[in-house]
Amino acid sequence: MKQLTVELGERSYPIYIGDGLLSRAAELFERHGIGKGSPLLVVTDTAVGPHYLAALTEALQSGGYRVATHTVEAGEKSKSLEMLDAIVATALEAGLDRKSTIVALGGGVVGDLAGFAAASFMRGVRFVQVPTTILAHDSSVGGKVAVNHRLAKNIIGAFHQPELVLYDTATLLTLPPREVRSGLAEMVKHGLIWNASFVDWLDANAPKLLALDPEALQYGLYEGCKVKAHVVAADEREDDLRAILNLGHTIGHALEAVAGYGELLHGEAIAIGMVGAAKLAGRLGYASEIYDVTKRLLKRFELPVQLPAHLDTDAIMAAMSHDKKFKEGRMVFIVPTAIGKVEINKSVQADWVREIVDELKGES
Amino acid sequence: MKQLTVELGERSYPIYIGDGLLSRAAELFERHGIGKGSPLLVVTDTAVGPHYLAALTEALQSGGYRVATHTVEAGEKSKSLEMLDAIVATALEAGLDRKSTIVALGGGVVGDLAGFAAASFMRGVRFVQVPTTILAHDSSVGGKVAVNHRLAKNIIGAFHQPELVLYDTATLLTLPPREVRSGLAEMVKHGLIWNASFVDWLDANAPKLLALDPEALQYGLYEGCKVKAHVVAADEREDDLRAILNLGHTIGHALEAVAGYGELLHGEAIAIGMVGAAKLAGRLGYASEIYDVTKRLLKRFELPVQLPAHLDTDAIMAAMSHDKKFKEGRMVFIVPTAIGKVEINKSVQADWVREIVDELKGES
Repeated sequence: MKQLTVELGERSYPIYIGDGLLSRAAELFERHGIGKGSPLLVVTDTAVGPHYLAALTEALQSGGYRVATHTVEAGEKSKSLEMLDAIVATALEAGLDRKSTIVALGGGVVGDLAGFAAASFMRGVRFVQVPTTILAHDSSVGGKVAVNHRLAKNIIGAFHQPELVLYDTATLLTLPPREVRSGLAEMVKHGLIWNASFVDWLDANAPKLLALDPEALQYGLYEGCKVKAHVVAADEREDDLRAILNLGHTIGHALEAVAGYGELLHGEAIAIGMVGAAKLAGRLGYASEIYDVTKRLLKRFELPVQLPAHLDTDAIMAAMSHDKKFKEGRMVFIVPTAIGKVEINKSVQADWVREIVDELKGES
Repeated sequence: MKQLTVELGERSYPIYIGDGLLSRAAELFERHGIGKGSPLLVVTDTAVGPHYLAALTEALQSGGYRVATHTVEAGEKSKSLEMLDAIVATALEAGLDRKSTIVALGGGVVGDLAGFAAASFMRGVRFVQVPTTILAHDSSVGGKVAVNHRLAKNIIGAFHQPELVLYDTATLLTLPPREVRSGLAEMVKHGLIWNASFVDWLDANAPKLLALDPEALQYGLYEGCKVKAHVVAADEREDDLRAILNLGHTIGHALEAVAGYGELLHGEAIAIGMVGAAKLAGRLGYASEIYDVTKRLLKRFELPVQLPAHLDTDAIMAAMSHDKKFKEGRMVFIVPTAIGKVEINKSVQADWVREIVDELKGES
């Protein structure tokens, strides 16, 4: 088992990463102050629940916890105020009180939804993240929780840090291969923004990661979480530095919006976005190695680097402007300046970005 | 103009109380860091908007602010996730961003709803309270914001302190007399829990307050807010001391729930509840003066002291248990121990409370 800490003063918390950790849930919950006097509520979804809900519930119950559960439909649509309403009903019916804890068992959707429920139920109760996807090594660390509005994603939310993150790598073995690759895209991002030697390691170990080799997974998640934890510790509320976590996301979010959620998985969209950012780096005069390494790495992970040609460039640019990153023909963009380093560039020409979006359609 | 500060470290904020302050809104907003680069959203309701929305909007616009508005139906029903959804739509359409401010113009319902919108829109934006009721001198200070769920009041919310509270006593002149009396009940409560000399002043000045005498109002609101600010500063997140603000509320909330919201205004319900708490003080051996003064004071303010006989005692007791204050026949109760002093008694016998509820039906 590996362990690291997100350093946030009195809101600091540990991340445990290991094989079979679900079975140790009660012990780890207790170690971090989750009391047994009040019931817990485990929130999961229809994709994850059938595999792991019983195991987690039983582990907690045999450790003396009272556990209620709430299962939502798998998928982005569950990140809604309606689902928040339903979770609160379950919480009230199960007798949760101010000393209770809400546990997210699942990927990013469940983590965001259950996290916002924990942030707002009774004006805030304790929260534990039990991520079951690789992608969630990103979203489960840092305390950003939210639901969607029909007009914008993640627009209603909070900063609400968990008490602990319990990452059982055994839960990753049931992930569909495409979800594995999508999750690894965020791992690549963490290397590219912060840690050149991790990039080298990722390059060397791509086949092992794709094959879900337990040791490689543990190391990769540990290093990925470490980057995330470091950035979050330096800028909890996203005032400045935390923006670097958006490498590939400016274009990526726009692609997800225009393609309609589903055609491109999140990791696929940001993979294309990272190629775009690398191309922008070249235009800004940074080493051409950035583009070469970024693209090679993404291909090693069997991630897309080409923007689907049928997506309309105007629509993509319009979606970016919704992301409020435009101002007078200029936009904020996370640009790699070397392998393992990025800058927050606040005056990238929007017409360059448009040209790059077009170029990405011809990428191969 | 009177001014006081809620001392909460870096979340400290001022309360301004004065006649005609709406017209000075732009100046006071600017003084407290509300920037003009991002639009504001003023939330109000159908009772208050027609009187004061134009005045506030114009004052802000003439000071260089861009202002969008959102009006909800007056009444408790607007404290819902549906209304939060609608406010977020307006905020997005008006182009609010992370540096924007949401302003609550109204009473407790608008303050709680707009406050939770401010707490959760984009994971938290600035918030200003512009209370327009006497009752809101309580709710607008302290940062507790929330919406209701069909199963429980105020169950989805946050602690989100405002940047400032701007209390224009001129907005109180359009209050219906019953709302005036209801608001004064919270003022009486603030005296009873903390400040015996304020109780004397209230006793002497009840007629002036009922007649909305500007000077008396300003002083009474100032002293009431001062008690609230002091208690909140000592216990922002309601871990202990803040519970004393619930004097009269254990019975009061149960009466509101059983009567159906509307038969009893909040202040009327807590007036009856305060008489109950004073009777309990007598049973616990505290001076009989407590009961005498409490009752005389409430009558001076033309507030009810008798519990409506048609309300079922079993139902009232059941509503109290929903309030989660029961444990093995004992409950938590705020009990006056002298005029201007209370204790948090955690082991009041529930059957005493039941007897007192019955006795309150015969009060006169």
